[in-house]
Amino acid sequence: MYFESLSEAITSKGNPSVLGLDPKLEYVPPFLREGKSVSDALYDFNRGLIDSCADLIPAIKPQSAYYEMYGAEGLDALRRTIEYASRAGMYVILDAKRGDIGTTAEAYAKAYLCPGSDIDCITINPYLGSDGVKPFINECIANDKAVFSLIKTSNKSSAELQDIDIGAGKPFYRHVAELTVQWGADYIGTDGYSVIGGVVGATHPYQLAELRKLMPQTFFLIPGYGAQGGLAQDVALGFDSKGGGAIVNSSRGLMCAYQKQNDPENYKTHTRNAVIAMRDDIMQYVRK
Amino acid sequence: MYFESLSEAITSKGNPSVLGLDPKLEYVPPFLREGKSVSDALYDFNRGLIDSCADLIPAIKPQSAYYEMYGAEGLDALRRTIEYASRAGMYVILDAKRGDIGTTAEAYAKAYLCPGSDIDCITINPYLGSDGVKPFINECIANDKAVFSLIKTSNKSSAELQDIDIGAGKPFYRHVAELTVQWGADYIGTDGYSVIGGVVGATHPYQLAELRKLMPQTFFLIPGYGAQGGLAQDVALGFDSKGGGAIVNSSRGLMCAYQKQNDPENYKTHTRNAVIAMRDDIMQYVRK
Repeated sequence: MYFESLSEAITSKGNPSVLGLDPKLEYVPPFLREGKSVSDALYDFNRGLIDSCADLIPAIKPQSAYYEMYGAEGLDALRRTIEYASRAGMYVILDAKRGDIGTTAEAYAKAYLCPGSDIDCITINPYLGSDGVKPFINECIANDKAVFSLIKTSNKSSAELQDIDIGAGKPFYRHVAELTVQWGADYIGTDGYSVIGGVVGATHPYQLAELRKLMPQTFFLIPGYGAQGGLAQDVALGFDSKGGGAIVNSSRGLMCAYQKQNDPENYKTHTRNAVIAMRDDIMQYVRK
Repeated sequence: MYFESLSEAITSKGNPSVLGLDPKLEYVPPFLREGKSVSDALYDFNRGLIDSCADLIPAIKPQSAYYEMYGAEGLDALRRTIEYASRAGMYVILDAKRGDIGTTAEAYAKAYLCPGSDIDCITINPYLGSDGVKPFINECIANDKAVFSLIKTSNKSSAELQDIDIGAGKPFYRHVAELTVQWGADYIGTDGYSVIGGVVGATHPYQLAELRKLMPQTFFLIPGYGAQGGLAQDVALGFDSKGGGAIVNSSRGLMCAYQKQNDPENYKTHTRNAVIAMRDDIMQYVRK
């Protein structure tokens, strides 16, 4: 239940990384783009990226915004990408950061976590409180899915709201963390993690360590490694004493690895190498 | 610029209400649904609702969740509904509550507020702070659009995060309100309202009055009237001394007005009557 299949996939592949798929059209190597619809260009690129490393990396995380940006064509590419990755045995996290009041949250939950959906997990925004979160949890319980709820995001200005002192030096995000633990407390999988995971940025190593201690049963999705400045030593603080309970995202760093080599023709090879380098970089700091 | 065209439409129609379009398939009158695709059923229902009251109400607010719930068919209905309402001269607010870090927020902003988009305004979630909000503002400035950012939502559990005391009795939502004012301070339209409006629920009349005072240049989107329990006396507290600066949403109360009369055949008449009743109810309390 919940994060169990992700935990298993991480163990079996020995890699707690997730391939972020945030494809702008200009990222697609020219030879893959030529003469194609937007949907086909994005999908073919994603498919190549998945093929390049599906044996090495347990999950993908498409960011919904980049598909929504291309309208119906983008959403068609997203749908096909999710289906393809799921068939390739990958765990699918849709990064959508949805959040709304009860009945509307229920509609979002049904949109993405319904029975038979190839999406295993989505990201949500907790600003509306428990009645905006529970409809997602209910859908997860019914259909063996999971969610990651925002706690401390990787961007610089996250401090403006999330670090506000709510008394005795307690930052707001810690209150959000406590609520997140509470919301998931009755729904713990056999892997030891609750149905509701948390998003904590690699760019805040102190908070990552603090939250790891505060939330032993919460699975972390850690963005901000690489391009945003998070180091392997930093993200390692998000793992628990068994070396589990976290997955680290990289999007551009993996998707656009070919750009550093100026070699779009062999983008698959460069992504595969980047996946291996990221895994080895992180695993040297994670307890085994 | 920004909310000016909405302000003008409210004045010319003498009605500060917005028609929320959150269509579940079971809301569509059976005679409109029969033998149709999901997209056509939702679109035909929305079109009928718009036709019934476009001369009386200045804006529509489709809630993205209900369309996403029906996949590509739902999103096709959403696209056509927005186009139809825009051609009918209505102001279009897409309720999507998007929010993400900078580059991703930029993708969301481009998805909905790009040049030529029929969407005039979207709702956003401020949890990520200024670098998640500014990309939306930039797109608004470039393309004469606007946003409503969540401040104090209408649902019961909004208190769990939004009412947290951050010192000296100051609730968290007031901090968010101050940031919202700050983010929009340099972008004030000729109608006197900033590019970034705020969502404040009708179910919190005390906070609505408090925030109205604190944010004289912020346009309010007020959900929670009717079905959720907000009264006309309550929502009136969200208007400023000139009787402007706010728009009140009703979704099910208007869309499903025919249900109370058990008369699906004449759903248009019942929605039109409900729009008139809502307008008259609110306007008796709003300063003119």
